Amino acid sequence: MTNPQYNVWKKLVDDHILDFLPSTDANAHTLKESMEYSLKAGGKRLRPVLLIAAADFCGLDAREALPYACALEFVHTSSLIHDDLPCMDDDDLRRGIPTNHKVYGEAMATLAGDGLLLASFEAMTKDCQLYLDDPEKMRRRIRAMNTIVKGSGVRGMVQGQSCDVEIEGKECSSALLDFIHLNKTAALITASVKAGGYLAGADAKTIADLTAYGEAIGLAFQIADDLLDVYGTEEEMGKRVHKDAELSKATYPAVYGIEASKARLAELTERALAIMAPYYDNAQFFNDLARDLMTRTN
Amino acid sequence: MTNPQYNVWKKLVDDHILDFLPSTDANAHTLKESMEYSLKAGGKRLRPVLLIAAADFCGLDAREALPYACALEFVHTSSLIHDDLPCMDDDDLRRGIPTNHKVYGEAMATLAGDGLLLASFEAMTKDCQLYLDDPEKMRRRIRAMNTIVKGSGVRGMVQGQSCDVEIEGKECSSALLDFIHLNKTAALITASVKAGGYLAGADAKTIADLTAYGEAIGLAFQIADDLLDVYGTEEEMGKRVHKDAELSKATYPAVYGIEASKARLAELTERALAIMAPYYDNAQFFNDLARDLMTRTN
Repeated sequence: MTNPQYNVWKKLVDDHILDFLPSTDANAHTLKESMEYSLKAGGKRLRPVLLIAAADFCGLDAREALPYACALEFVHTSSLIHDDLPCMDDDDLRRGIPTNHKVYGEAMATLAGDGLLLASFEAMTKDCQLYLDDPEKMRRRIRAMNTIVKGSGVRGMVQGQSCDVEIEGKECSSALLDFIHLNKTAALITASVKAGGYLAGADAKTIADLTAYGEAIGLAFQIADDLLDVYGTEEEMGKRVHKDAELSKATYPAVYGIEASKARLAELTERALAIMAPYYDNAQFFNDLARDLMTRTN
Repeated sequence: MTNPQYNVWKKLVDDHILDFLPSTDANAHTLKESMEYSLKAGGKRLRPVLLIAAADFCGLDAREALPYACALEFVHTSSLIHDDLPCMDDDDLRRGIPTNHKVYGEAMATLAGDGLLLASFEAMTKDCQLYLDDPEKMRRRIRAMNTIVKGSGVRGMVQGQSCDVEIEGKECSSALLDFIHLNKTAALITASVKAGGYLAGADAKTIADLTAYGEAIGLAFQIADDLLDVYGTEEEMGKRVHKDAELSKATYPAVYGIEASKARLAELTERALAIMAPYYDNAQFFNDLARDLMTRTN
């Protein structure tokens, strides 16, 4: 990413993400290993960095936002592990290494995904317990947790995934495609910036702007992903490409065509920039990120 | 169950559990159906009733505890759906009807399990948002949520399940067997009574007693389950029996023998009764329940 702050925050997440994973007993070392395997596989850490960036934008120290940032990455990683299972997308490669179930088996991968979802809420509620004497900090944390869980759950990411599974191989209307993309991808990205705002105690107008920005880049992110599945290489992407077409997945290129998809991506990027324009230089990070996501190659 | 209050609280849960499931969009109706299918399949509702009973015991109205009670049942139901998957126990029958994946397929069952875990936290954080002006109620709720998630997660239920999966077909020491049973079953049952106590703002001594009671009946419950798999009928149990031996599962009868298992069950029941003895008649519900769990036939 072009903005140097991105890598600073990404490093903060990389350096501390395992600190927020609850310690299992020695008996359950395989479970622990399988969760750590997928968490350490890297990736962009987009969601946690976005949460930290939004919190910082609203005046909160990155360190205070870190448990929620890592909790988001736990949810995201859980969804990748389950998505890769044979009964879902059946992928062997993720972030350039074998998928979780290829290493630990399907049963352990299922449990690792469940464990990461629960670890996410354990990290957040554990942090909340540090502030039981501070009503305002409890309030902010409750709002942030509710935002994260809504973005992840059956009115967000999981509902998008369920439609994605159901539509495979069938005709997909443009309205349903938008619904799938908004839910399976944009919902959690939107929750990232919104939760960051809540943690920092931002006012309603700022929360609304961050939410609108998150929706725009969240959808743009998924369209770019769809295009990269057409154009990208397995080497660059660290995962199998061209699989969407093989599986007759509901994608922007499949429903709208390549050119219209690129136009929509550009339009969403412009929208994101316009939303943050009133904040001038304070929104430099968000502007850089929106442009980077449009031109990304992995 | 012999105590009439059990069925009153069970009915409260049965009548309202779907109210706490977040509404999906119409597009995601299959996800919703699959989650509701498993939630409506019934069962004893032991965990939610225990949470309500503990809250009531400590002076809180059952209605105020209901969101957390239903959240517990969401977690439990999620674990059953994933446990039944072909890659785990591969069961076709649960509570007398086909398992979730037999009806909705493995992909949807995986997502239904994930969705229920997330719905659990959505129900709880949504309830928390009703009390943002009441620091004491926020505090109690944060403690209850943390208790539930710890009992469910990688230091509780999920860690127990992971060892259960790993030990299949291998020699199991008595220490490891205790670890598995304490985690895969007793942890969530213990969390139920403990969270009920926290919600009601109980003092530390009462929380400690409820916790000790929960551990005793939680372990007793699993030993009874192991024995029922040997003695029970598919008709009574609503699921396949004798499968533990087939799968060489780590069970009490397999490790200790039938008679020693029965003796341990009786001893744990006595321990549960002894813990609650200082509360005399106030603990009638808990005493009845401990005795019922020892002699249960399903």
